[in-house]
Amino acid sequence: MSVAYDDLAKLLREAQTLTSVTELLGWDQETMMPRKAAAFRAEERALLSTLAHERATHPRLGELLAACEADQALRADPQVAANLREIRRDYDRARKLPLDLVAEMSETSSLAMEAWKVARGQNDFKQFQPWLEKQLRLNRRKAECWGTPAGGELYDALLDDFEPNTTTVELEAIFRPLREALTPLILTLTSAAHQPTDAPFRVALPLDQQLAFNRSLLEQIGFDVRAGRLDTSAHPFSVGLGPGDTRITTRFRDDALLDAVGSSLHEAGHGLYEQGLPKQRLHGQPLAEPLGLAIHESQSRLWENHVGRSRAFCRWVLPEMQRFFGAPLEAAGTDDLYEAVNTVRAGLIRVESDEATYHLHIMLRFDLERAMLRDDLRAADLPAAWNERVKQDLGLEVPDDTRGCLQDIHWSMGAIGYFPTYTLGSLYAAQMWEAVAQSVPDLSEQIARGEFAALLGWLRTNIHAHGRRYPAVELCRRVTGRPLDHGPLMRHLEHKLRPIYHIAEASK
Amino acid sequence: MSVAYDDLAKLLREAQTLTSVTELLGWDQETMMPRKAAAFRAEERALLSTLAHERATHPRLGELLAACEADQALRADPQVAANLREIRRDYDRARKLPLDLVAEMSETSSLAMEAWKVARGQNDFKQFQPWLEKQLRLNRRKAECWGTPAGGELYDALLDDFEPNTTTVELEAIFRPLREALTPLILTLTSAAHQPTDAPFRVALPLDQQLAFNRSLLEQIGFDVRAGRLDTSAHPFSVGLGPGDTRITTRFRDDALLDAVGSSLHEAGHGLYEQGLPKQRLHGQPLAEPLGLAIHESQSRLWENHVGRSRAFCRWVLPEMQRFFGAPLEAAGTDDLYEAVNTVRAGLIRVESDEATYHLHIMLRFDLERAMLRDDLRAADLPAAWNERVKQDLGLEVPDDTRGCLQDIHWSMGAIGYFPTYTLGSLYAAQMWEAVAQSVPDLSEQIARGEFAALLGWLRTNIHAHGRRYPAVELCRRVTGRPLDHGPLMRHLEHKLRPIYHIAEASK
Repeated sequence: MSVAYDDLAKLLREAQTLTSVTELLGWDQETMMPRKAAAFRAEERALLSTLAHERATHPRLGELLAACEADQALRADPQVAANLREIRRDYDRARKLPLDLVAEMSETSSLAMEAWKVARGQNDFKQFQPWLEKQLRLNRRKAECWGTPAGGELYDALLDDFEPNTTTVELEAIFRPLREALTPLILTLTSAAHQPTDAPFRVALPLDQQLAFNRSLLEQIGFDVRAGRLDTSAHPFSVGLGPGDTRITTRFRDDALLDAVGSSLHEAGHGLYEQGLPKQRLHGQPLAEPLGLAIHESQSRLWENHVGRSRAFCRWVLPEMQRFFGAPLEAAGTDDLYEAVNTVRAGLIRVESDEATYHLHIMLRFDLERAMLRDDLRAADLPAAWNERVKQDLGLEVPDDTRGCLQDIHWSMGAIGYFPTYTLGSLYAAQMWEAVAQSVPDLSEQIARGEFAALLGWLRTNIHAHGRRYPAVELCRRVTGRPLDHGPLMRHLEHKLRPIYHIAEASK
Repeated sequence: MSVAYDDLAKLLREAQTLTSVTELLGWDQETMMPRKAAAFRAEERALLSTLAHERATHPRLGELLAACEADQALRADPQVAANLREIRRDYDRARKLPLDLVAEMSETSSLAMEAWKVARGQNDFKQFQPWLEKQLRLNRRKAECWGTPAGGELYDALLDDFEPNTTTVELEAIFRPLREALTPLILTLTSAAHQPTDAPFRVALPLDQQLAFNRSLLEQIGFDVRAGRLDTSAHPFSVGLGPGDTRITTRFRDDALLDAVGSSLHEAGHGLYEQGLPKQRLHGQPLAEPLGLAIHESQSRLWENHVGRSRAFCRWVLPEMQRFFGAPLEAAGTDDLYEAVNTVRAGLIRVESDEATYHLHIMLRFDLERAMLRDDLRAADLPAAWNERVKQDLGLEVPDDTRGCLQDIHWSMGAIGYFPTYTLGSLYAAQMWEAVAQSVPDLSEQIARGEFAALLGWLRTNIHAHGRRYPAVELCRRVTGRPLDHGPLMRHLEHKLRPIYHIAEASK
């Protein structure tokens, strides 16, 4: 195509290869690594991260990129043009961060995460507070390096790292009506006379059998097990290590099969996205990379909620479960399973919350982290502000910070601007689901028969294959015909949950 | 101590950290990696190896080393002096290899190993022959780069890489009397009226139970499972990845528990050595590295043969097995187990051979590879020469090359000069065993009670803790009081095997 473009691709692939190795070090640490290796592992990860950053910001890369950008013939190919646009974005952003800041952020994250674990364990916010303050300072500095858009705020610069081209004002414009629609629905459901339960599925099942079942489930929905694997870790996660290597994990408790299945479907959604990216040819290039956290999350939410919590899926999967586990699940029926995976209940813990109340957890985090970044809220005042919001939004008293503002790892890692992408992901998922349901009219019937190929094919073609070719906003418009809004998610929740709770649908 | 010395240690640690990561990539490939990731994994390993080689040969390292060598005060410390001696050795050897040769060797190994797998599968030596010829050429070139000692031959240069400071002439001087003593013993045993059998232990046992049993066994002999792990792979291996992280693998078949236990003990011997090296403080420095392949192998042979095939160990481990596996092993007695792990039988396959005939396999490989390197034997004539030697040494007809000269992976990897270290390892193990038995008079009684702390403590203090401080010859003299010879191994075999075969001991 062009020597400069080929050389550029080679440099990017090398940088990404170092990142892939760093990610394998992380996967291994969470799943396999013996405990006593932790200190040395930190050393390995720090060294590899530095090498990757050095390559990603190398002046030679900048020269090649400039040469390609100046090549009109090259840019005539819209794929190449999109690739160059995104390479430029990454290069400029990486170059804007001084190496000492990168090193300080990396070191602070390790230390702050350790401090957070201790503080959470001892319900002692004071121990964590100085680390939170430091992470806020570093995030402000990082945001200043990147720069804020005209009329924007520091938070925009951070948000842009996780979800490119999305602003705080846009988020608010989506979140406000979502909250206004969600809050009365949740109230109606939680005060209904009929309350569904997951009790029939709270039965003890051996962990190794649960793992085997989840592995077979993934294979059946289309996850390529020769190009990936499922393991166990304390916190479920997924990682696309490179061409032919996508790994996901889940978590098992002996009486919580449904939680594990939900978590596996969620992580498999991430994994299917990674497996669908054109990495074989283009590893290291934006065209083979996920578009951003929100679109990544849309894939996990789509499989977890729109597939996994549907009646059709329950109809198919229950006999599979019964065949696998035998007697303990024999008495359950499809309706029992459908109700069990669709209970709505206000709770203190985000990761244990249901499909509806989840977003209240996200919105309070968004508001609080934004206020802290602006210094409208001091870190010292976080617990009080948190508890007040939980009372107001969820109607619950927070008994301790462990179940309050210390419950999430994100702020200790220095990830500010990350939380909103979870809710954006659900919104995208719901809007995509309406599009795929139109395109595959018998989707429910297929799912009820355990057939997922048409669904996966649609996602492959319309989402996965593009990598970062289109900005998320544009992809959404191309695929769903409309800009993102809260309508599809609310329709999905209303239409599914009201009947389960024996409540008439609200008039339109 | 000295700024230059500290900086040197830092550079070495960084280079070794890259090597550790490369080794993790290898471990993961053999145990966890999904199949389709193979091509990308090769890319990752190649990149990391190059980075490690660049650091190990960096001129800055040479400058620091020279500065340390010129520092008399520094060299007054004998540990530091030994460290510098070995750093110099590594640096000079690495610098003598031109980068293009390193790259060609690495690429050839990958390709030749693939060709070997196919050739072995199809029993088609002709397909492998050109690769063998290429590996011989590359090995000659490598040996010429390193240079041969005065009066020596090319083979010495290769041998020195695997087992420093050992010459071909010395090997021959040890191997000749070993063969002369072994051959009649093997003949006597294999023609005896009483032939022991492992039949009572050829019972089907679930693989996951076997893995669990082997893991508990390792823990009981002293392998630190919080600083290591045992997994399953097609070919058992061990790797010391770094401080706090030593991983070993074994292989299970459902009716071959004893093979798995023997293999686990063997790999655990390697693993205990790695865990005993002072890596926490000195990772990357020769003082924290294994001394060479022969001493490494001595540790595996010691645990596999001197511990695992002893009557005392059988007395302890049989009830452990019976408690774990129940009914299928209930009827067996200590003598049954002791005989089962001590059968001697001439066979075609090295890795399946017993403690005695094993060395005949090694010596024929040593003679043949040495002859090929010298061009006294052409690669094309290898099969005929191999088959003749097997007939002569083991009394067996070789039915095909798959079970003949194509059985081992070593030559395809380009490892010439590696095989002899297996037998050296056994010789060292036997000589160390006599020393430890003198130092711990009730060693057998301890083992029969499942107590291994005194044995492991002796190995830690006398072998593991030293790393590369002493050359192997000197270590042997310090620990056993004598230079290496074949006496201890022959005494061990004679004293153990003759009674098992109901044959009177030879008169002295």
